[in-house]
Amino acid sequence: MERFNAKHPAKKDFTSSRVATKMKPMRHDIARRLRAIRTELNKKKIGCLIITKPANVTYATGFLGDDSWAIIAAGRVYLLTDSRYTEQAEKECPSCTIIDRVGPMAEAVAGLLKKLKSVRTVTVEESTSLGDFERLRRTVKTRFRVAAGIVESVRSIKDAREIAAIRSAASISSQALDNTLPYIKPGISESELAGMLDFQIRKLGARNSFETIVAFGPNASRPHHQPGVRKLKRQDSVLIDFGARYKGYCSDMTRCFAIGGMTAFYQKVYDVVEQAQAAAIKTIRAGVKITRVDAAARQVIEKSGLPVYGHGTGHGFGLEIHESPFLKADAKGTLKAGQVITIEPGIYMPGRLGIRIEDDILVTETGHKILTRKSTRL
Amino acid sequence: MERFNAKHPAKKDFTSSRVATKMKPMRHDIARRLRAIRTELNKKKIGCLIITKPANVTYATGFLGDDSWAIIAAGRVYLLTDSRYTEQAEKECPSCTIIDRVGPMAEAVAGLLKKLKSVRTVTVEESTSLGDFERLRRTVKTRFRVAAGIVESVRSIKDAREIAAIRSAASISSQALDNTLPYIKPGISESELAGMLDFQIRKLGARNSFETIVAFGPNASRPHHQPGVRKLKRQDSVLIDFGARYKGYCSDMTRCFAIGGMTAFYQKVYDVVEQAQAAAIKTIRAGVKITRVDAAARQVIEKSGLPVYGHGTGHGFGLEIHESPFLKADAKGTLKAGQVITIEPGIYMPGRLGIRIEDDILVTETGHKILTRKSTRL
Repeated sequence: MERFNAKHPAKKDFTSSRVATKMKPMRHDIARRLRAIRTELNKKKIGCLIITKPANVTYATGFLGDDSWAIIAAGRVYLLTDSRYTEQAEKECPSCTIIDRVGPMAEAVAGLLKKLKSVRTVTVEESTSLGDFERLRRTVKTRFRVAAGIVESVRSIKDAREIAAIRSAASISSQALDNTLPYIKPGISESELAGMLDFQIRKLGARNSFETIVAFGPNASRPHHQPGVRKLKRQDSVLIDFGARYKGYCSDMTRCFAIGGMTAFYQKVYDVVEQAQAAAIKTIRAGVKITRVDAAARQVIEKSGLPVYGHGTGHGFGLEIHESPFLKADAKGTLKAGQVITIEPGIYMPGRLGIRIEDDILVTETGHKILTRKSTRL
Repeated sequence: MERFNAKHPAKKDFTSSRVATKMKPMRHDIARRLRAIRTELNKKKIGCLIITKPANVTYATGFLGDDSWAIIAAGRVYLLTDSRYTEQAEKECPSCTIIDRVGPMAEAVAGLLKKLKSVRTVTVEESTSLGDFERLRRTVKTRFRVAAGIVESVRSIKDAREIAAIRSAASISSQALDNTLPYIKPGISESELAGMLDFQIRKLGARNSFETIVAFGPNASRPHHQPGVRKLKRQDSVLIDFGARYKGYCSDMTRCFAIGGMTAFYQKVYDVVEQAQAAAIKTIRAGVKITRVDAAARQVIEKSGLPVYGHGTGHGFGLEIHESPFLKADAKGTLKAGQVITIEPGIYMPGRLGIRIEDDILVTETGHKILTRKSTRL
């Protein structure tokens, strides 16, 4: 497609002008996210939260670098970073107070909290390591609490800016796969094909959202197969599971192809997986029970007599590749408008084949929108 | 080079036959590693260690998958994994007892420890998250301790199998860059060049050891620049910092090039960085103080009157891209034979240029060996 042409910088290409015109400045989004996070903090009587998980730091501040923590205190958000990132932080986080730490992180936290005299109890995210927590406790003389999933629960519902970025990431991954199809020929190795796909993602101005999985033939029966030296045969099958990351946001899709003609059995299994996926997608709208979506896909496969997959039917994603909600048989709750999820049923027969089809879906009040392009065919 | 030709599978190519003949089976290496770890555990009176850090799990068991923990108890090592990985674990970890968990990790640990009746205190690695630790404490009725750096201190000295894998990874990265040189032409974007280099690494049967950094012109003054849409000009400069991961082991190298002729100033700065790196490498042998190696590079730059870099002079690497030892001005201790480190001084002038040269070096009793190929030139 012309709009992915290298002559046009990716930044322009993947945010349609309509969306761009409507979109408010980044600081408005950050302010709204912080209001939502503060509402959660108030419910839990948390006055000061130390955010250590990188995706949560990005969400609350806009910062896309590494090795930095954010602190939400009364009326203010602080980003604790170091000289490698201060230039970037000033650009990305106009609404934060940026602290350029020189020594260890715990000392920077202690220094800041000394200035914020009213803070008596500090809450730390549960993803923090025992080592970091111990260094904090030794250095910062205050009471500590640990909390789970505060920023994650807010992040689960995506705002317009996030949806635009995910849409672009999904569009890039669909296009990158299309650009890779001519290279899927007998003789190419799994590793080389993965490399070619990753190259196409880079050419479109994005990065990988996780390490690309390419599995030929029976290798596809292992959902987490790592691409190796196995070469594509004249009659063979291909499973590709991959995603693009654009402006910090992920996409995640899986496609399967038969090479040199589809056997009747491969076709049969493929059709069942496709029907299972369609059945699950059909149920998606705000308010539906997650277990109902999960069961819709599994029931199609159960009825076919083929083996039902052991993994979940899908998962939320955004700044992280795996986020709430997780679509599993024992999941609680309902889908909500603004969540973005994968639907990815599969059928795995060790030594024989593995077929999985995965697309990215936005949950809306009245139904859903599929963000990945469905039509990919060899 | 012929030996990287796609016709020969990478497995054969990157382990020289001489090394392969001498190499003992994997289980001998694992047994020796475990003896070294147990010596450390005995010193610290630790009877049972839960290993949660992926690189440490790999080191102690040979397992290369994800989401798995290892437990070292009296006379036995257990790998707690799930159905996605049991097939892989059985192949990679012949000396472990493999536990195929169905429920949460904490329950699997509780179940195992109930059988190991003599265990009264369990030690957990400090990289464990607060959340995982809390779930363990709720589920496993025993006393807990936290320890830091036990497996890491053993891992710091590489065995023959590890050195062979790192040598291969370094060789692959050198070759991948050579294969990429023809693409470094005006008009290519940073992102596209990064993608082409990653593709060459994949073609050679390896993966990235971290996300490739490509920076054109003044972008190179930010050591952690992310490749973007910036295109290479007719007269320009390029910094590439990247590595390959082979059989789980990393390499890490940085090269800088001038395009369309080198200005006198770029040449001057380049020469100083090259001399600084040579001065540091020259000091490397077992027993030398780490601060002496670090100072050797900095002194050359200081004398030149150009700005001295703010980062460390180098770092160990292996299963992780950053490992002990860290070569910094305030580092303690000496280098030891069998450590593998980078030496990577740089000069950064914001808005103007950034030049860093990085190679991989094995510390030996009498000196050192450079594992990356030094001769890369456009």
